[in-house]
Amino acid sequence: MAQPTDFKHFDLTVLPASARYKLLTATVVPRPIAWVCTLDTGHVPNLAPYSFFGLMGSDPPIVAFAPGDRADGTPKDTALNIASGGEFSVSLVSAELSQVMSDSATDFPHGMAEATKLDVGLEPGVKIAVPRVRLSPATLECVEVQTIQIGKTRIILGQVLGVTLRADAVLEEAKYHVDTAALDLIGRMGGRGGYARTRDGFEIGRMTYAEWQEREGPEN
Amino acid sequence: MAQPTDFKHFDLTVLPASARYKLLTATVVPRPIAWVCTLDTGHVPNLAPYSFFGLMGSDPPIVAFAPGDRADGTPKDTALNIASGGEFSVSLVSAELSQVMSDSATDFPHGMAEATKLDVGLEPGVKIAVPRVRLSPATLECVEVQTIQIGKTRIILGQVLGVTLRADAVLEEAKYHVDTAALDLIGRMGGRGGYARTRDGFEIGRMTYAEWQEREGPEN
Repeated sequence: MAQPTDFKHFDLTVLPASARYKLLTATVVPRPIAWVCTLDTGHVPNLAPYSFFGLMGSDPPIVAFAPGDRADGTPKDTALNIASGGEFSVSLVSAELSQVMSDSATDFPHGMAEATKLDVGLEPGVKIAVPRVRLSPATLECVEVQTIQIGKTRIILGQVLGVTLRADAVLEEAKYHVDTAALDLIGRMGGRGGYARTRDGFEIGRMTYAEWQEREGPEN
Repeated sequence: MAQPTDFKHFDLTVLPASARYKLLTATVVPRPIAWVCTLDTGHVPNLAPYSFFGLMGSDPPIVAFAPGDRADGTPKDTALNIASGGEFSVSLVSAELSQVMSDSATDFPHGMAEATKLDVGLEPGVKIAVPRVRLSPATLECVEVQTIQIGKTRIILGQVLGVTLRADAVLEEAKYHVDTAALDLIGRMGGRGGYARTRDGFEIGRMTYAEWQEREGPEN
């Protein structure tokens, strides 16, 4: 192990928002990427990637993501569409989809369908009216349960109703056994366009308290 | 790009919690790891890792994590301590800390200090009373702003008051420029003990709408 070394502390209570953003997005990594599809009131699909995103539970199954606002302070189409329709799909992003996912973050005008413009094929949802990205290896079908506003931070909590997985990644359907490596997903790193592949995987055995006691001896 | 292929759909509304857990933890990856330290009312530090965790905003700076419950249905020490104290530190986990981080998830009895038992050095916090993991390259100092309960899913939202970074990862302090790769963090993958390193990084240029128009021509 490395020896203790020097550290620098940044007081976020006195730094501007841009500094807080740089420090936190460079530090809380790797972040899974939610490629979120929604429908506007005219049934035009909106598609945009978010890495302020996390799995929060399985009983009930809950994901959280934070779409933020546009530069002018108005909510993004994703948030507007969920506020009016409640449903959204979260397609996870494989390495082969990384460029087109990033392109879909382009500031297209309101009502312009990113998926059509970028030639991203969509497939109908199973349990929701919102489609999913055809080539994504894994999509969560979600319905909003709560939206929390803390200052300018807007957090959407969704219950996951269904999961659609590429068949080759399902090793044993009856045991819900998924080959995560086969999904070949990427994570968001720091900087303006930093990402990381997840191909360099490893396993760690989980130790029980009884095993720890055996290892350490009775005096512990 | 791969051609469209077969997909399997799993209806989470009819599957048991164990199946939902397996499907979602194998799919929402890579997940950043929050190694969360809290203090109980006797000032004994508790330390446990959580990957139901995400960055949710920078204005104000908010993180979310979901500690879940013990197998017997009672809240974990992390949640009990935050309910009584409000403060917690989130240390991110580098590859060299992966084994001891995993060991700290062992089901030690209530009130037994994991950090002491596992010889994890702690350092005092700057803005909070809760310490941080000495060898972690990045720690967020947080105070609870809200806890949301949805069924058995408990989501703790914390405001980040300060960030402590290993000095060698701070490239330009005045510009808040962090070398994310130097942190060498790991992400949680699927399975009982699956993780991934983040060393296989790459960059994607972000396209503006004007650039997209130029690329596609005026008819778009």
